[in-house]
Amino acid sequence: MKRQGKKGPQAMQVNATLEEVTAAADGMSDKEFRIYMLQMIWSIKEDIKQQNQTMKDHFDNELRKQIQEAKDQLYREIEVIKNKQSEILEMQEAINQLKNSMENTTSRVEHLEDRTSDNEDKVFQLEKNIDSSARLLRNHEQNIQEIWDNIKRPNLRVIGIQEGTELQTKGMSSLFNEIIRENFPDLKNETESQILEAYRTPNVQNHKRSTPRHIIMKMPNIQNKERILKATRERKQITFRGKPIRITADLSTQTLKARRSWNNIFQTLKENGFQPRIVYPAKLSFRMENEIKTFHDKQKFKEFAARKPSLQNILAKVLQEEEMENNNENQQWEVGQ
Amino acid sequence: MKRQGKKGPQAMQVNATLEEVTAAADGMSDKEFRIYMLQMIWSIKEDIKQQNQTMKDHFDNELRKQIQEAKDQLYREIEVIKNKQSEILEMQEAINQLKNSMENTTSRVEHLEDRTSDNEDKVFQLEKNIDSSARLLRNHEQNIQEIWDNIKRPNLRVIGIQEGTELQTKGMSSLFNEIIRENFPDLKNETESQILEAYRTPNVQNHKRSTPRHIIMKMPNIQNKERILKATRERKQITFRGKPIRITADLSTQTLKARRSWNNIFQTLKENGFQPRIVYPAKLSFRMENEIKTFHDKQKFKEFAARKPSLQNILAKVLQEEEMENNNENQQWEVGQ
Amino acid sequence: MKRQGKKGPQAMQVNATLEEVTAAADGMSDKEFRIYMLQMIWSIKEDIKQQNQTMKDHFDNELRKQIQEAKDQLYREIEVIKNKQSEILEMQEAINQLKNSMENTTSRVEHLEDRTSDNEDKVFQLEKNIDSSARLLRNHEQNIQEIWDNIKRPNLRVIGIQEGTELQTKGMSSLFNEIIRENFPDLKNETESQILEAYRTPNVQNHKRSTPRHIIMKMPNIQNKERILKATRERKQITFRGKPIRITADLSTQTLKARRSWNNIFQTLKENGFQPRIVYPAKLSFRMENEIKTFHDKQKFKEFAARKPSLQNILAKVLQEEEMENNNENQQWEVGQ
Repeated sequence: MKRQGKKGPQAMQVNATLEEVTAAADGMSDKEFRIYMLQMIWSIKEDIKQQNQTMKDHFDNELRKQIQEAKDQLYREIEVIKNKQSEILEMQEAINQLKNSMENTTSRVEHLEDRTSDNEDKVFQLEKNIDSSARLLRNHEQNIQEIWDNIKRPNLRVIGIQEGTELQTKGMSSLFNEIIRENFPDLKNETESQILEAYRTPNVQNHKRSTPRHIIMKMPNIQNKERILKATRERKQITFRGKPIRITADLSTQTLKARRSWNNIFQTLKENGFQPRIVYPAKLSFRMENEIKTFHDKQKFKEFAARKPSLQNILAKVLQEEEMENNNENQQWEVGQ
Repeated sequence: MKRQGKKGPQAMQVNATLEEVTAAADGMSDKEFRIYMLQMIWSIKEDIKQQNQTMKDHFDNELRKQIQEAKDQLYREIEVIKNKQSEILEMQEAINQLKNSMENTTSRVEHLEDRTSDNEDKVFQLEKNIDSSARLLRNHEQNIQEIWDNIKRPNLRVIGIQEGTELQTKGMSSLFNEIIRENFPDLKNETESQILEAYRTPNVQNHKRSTPRHIIMKMPNIQNKERILKATRERKQITFRGKPIRITADLSTQTLKARRSWNNIFQTLKENGFQPRIVYPAKLSFRMENEIKTFHDKQKFKEFAARKPSLQNILAKVLQEEEMENNNENQQWEVGQ
Repeated sequence: MKRQGKKGPQAMQVNATLEEVTAAADGMSDKEFRIYMLQMIWSIKEDIKQQNQTMKDHFDNELRKQIQEAKDQLYREIEVIKNKQSEILEMQEAINQLKNSMENTTSRVEHLEDRTSDNEDKVFQLEKNIDSSARLLRNHEQNIQEIWDNIKRPNLRVIGIQEGTELQTKGMSSLFNEIIRENFPDLKNETESQILEAYRTPNVQNHKRSTPRHIIMKMPNIQNKERILKATRERKQITFRGKPIRITADLSTQTLKARRSWNNIFQTLKENGFQPRIVYPAKLSFRMENEIKTFHDKQKFKEFAARKPSLQNILAKVLQEEEMENNNENQQWEVGQ
């Protein structure tokens, strides 16, 4: 029986069906069944206790594990973020450096602005000064030219007398008298022995040049100089001991240049019967419409010519050529004797 | 009985109280009760199994759900942070761009500093050059003035002779002789026929002007010029063919200006009996304390006047007016004939 | 019995062993056991219900607690990150400020570059202008010097005549004649009474100076001036009323300076028998290798001397000293009478 009783509870397997359990219980005595019941209930209680523990363990483990997993996952994200954030420090340093550089640069720029303003002020002042200098220089230029012309006004320039001739004649005075006697016997009384001074120019002889230096002869007054020049213009040729020489007015470099600048226009006017003349010091004078027109300034002459078709036609080519030359050369103004 | 046995277990409802269950069991046979018990225990076991499963499911679901919720919540935060962090990249780019700009700007500033220094050096040099130019210009200015005065020193300036008169007299020389005979018969022997040259100034006649141009007459020496000027000052009026003319020294523009600058002071001194005179070229001379005082420079004269109460009183108004004029006009110095 | 039955279930404690429970059940009647069983099962059911609730509560609490803990932990991290991130805003502001500053600075730099270029252009133009001004100034300088020399060429400079002597002689003319008669009786016919003008220089007497001012005497022509100068050179001493005076050419300041600049070389050449002379206006002339060498320019002379060992030897010391003086003084060029 005991074996049988033992057999009953042992048959109450977990996977036993209710029918199998019921069949097993059929053969039990009351006492056996009671024990079986008590065993069953005790076993259920134990089961519950154990399963609770299992459940709790499972739960605790699972909870810990999954939270840990989630935390790990999130921490990895946070780690990434933190790594990224470490760059903020570098950036802050970079920004601070930039701020310093900017401050430094700004103060340099401010300093530069001050210096540049200063330069501008000074340049403006310099421009003003150089403008008034330029005005003064032009004024001096013209004054020096006029002074030279004034000084040279009583002078004659004699071209073509062999170097050394003045030694043979024992002085410039006799040389001058010889020229007068040979060319202008009528002026002998008024002009003979009248030169105040006479010299070769330039001062130093350049032996490489084959032509003799010019002789400047200073007359005591302008009338006599003019008389000789007038007589010179009236004669076909002036000679010294039979050889041709030239006698001209003695003009300043600048006046000569100004005279030469009329050359092309002068030539054209002459060819067209306007009877042009260069008037002292460097004016162009010509006959037109029964009047004598005189021009000191080429610009003024061009404006006048532009209003006169007869002039415009004959001068068109000459004036155009001059325009081109002027554009090619830098304007330069210098004076001299 | 079987119906009764069936009735018992069916009455063991979950919400049945212990009393109801006990009452239901009272009517059961042993066999019915045994089956009922076995059923009860089996059902409890099943319940436990099922409830465990339910609990586990609940737990798993809840765990997953809540962790997911927490993760979602945190991920949202992380997302916000990450979004924010994406700006770091932009900032780094911005910083790099700024660094480049800064480098670029710094090198431009350095280049500018070099160029500005260069400009400063050149401006300094220009200022030095223009200073020495200005010194030279003033020196030339004064030289040109002195040269003109020197050249003009033997000249007389005759004012008021009608244009063309020199054609009637057949030359300036006879015109000059006529003036001498009409006004200074005593000087006839020393000065007649002495002019070296004579011309109208300015060179070109301006037909719009009603007054005749002045005539410049060059004497062979200064003594004779001075004699004529002295005789002129001694006569009340100089005439040509009965009409009043004027004869003066021929002075450079600058000297004339310097002379004119004494006008107000001269007038005041004259009115107060100081017998002032303008001495060649442009000095103020007057009698005071039994001495002749001569001043070349207006500043020196003002300093002298400031120490002499008698002068200070009579000149106060004139000098004050001059001061104001000087402040209004820019100092300008130019020369000419 | 009831008490006994009551005693049984009460003995079924949780911690009672199966043997104790079995022993307790032995004494029960069927009815008591049935009730005991029902009570046991009901109690198990209640237990299960209660334990489930406990488990659920535990689980819910634990879950909530641990998730909260994890969240707190992570939120703390996130908080740290967020705090850090709040700096991003500041940095962005800083970057924006830097960008603005950079933009501002760049535009200032651009403006400065324009202004600096403008200054450079103007400075370049000014340099060009001042260069051509300097050329003109040098040209004017030389012209003014030449004009003065030209004007002064007929002049004699008489040094050492007591101030006021001209008042005793009643004029410069008689004073001049007295000098001629006393020193150059041979020139009496050609030169007496010939001076065109004569004056003391400087114009104003400086009473602090003990030496009398020089007298400038203008001859009507250069020949007579040259005759007197030649006669002066030939006499050991020139006197006026027995006291020594000097008669020299009247040269421009610049020419005098140029003449003086030859002094050391002139002296050395003289000591070594080269018969040096200063030729008008300021040239060095000397005899060498049976020729007369003439130099206008000191540089040219130095180059010539460098090629001639005989000159090189005697001039080495003098030229070296001049070199050093030139390095010490700033080149300065000014003209005057």
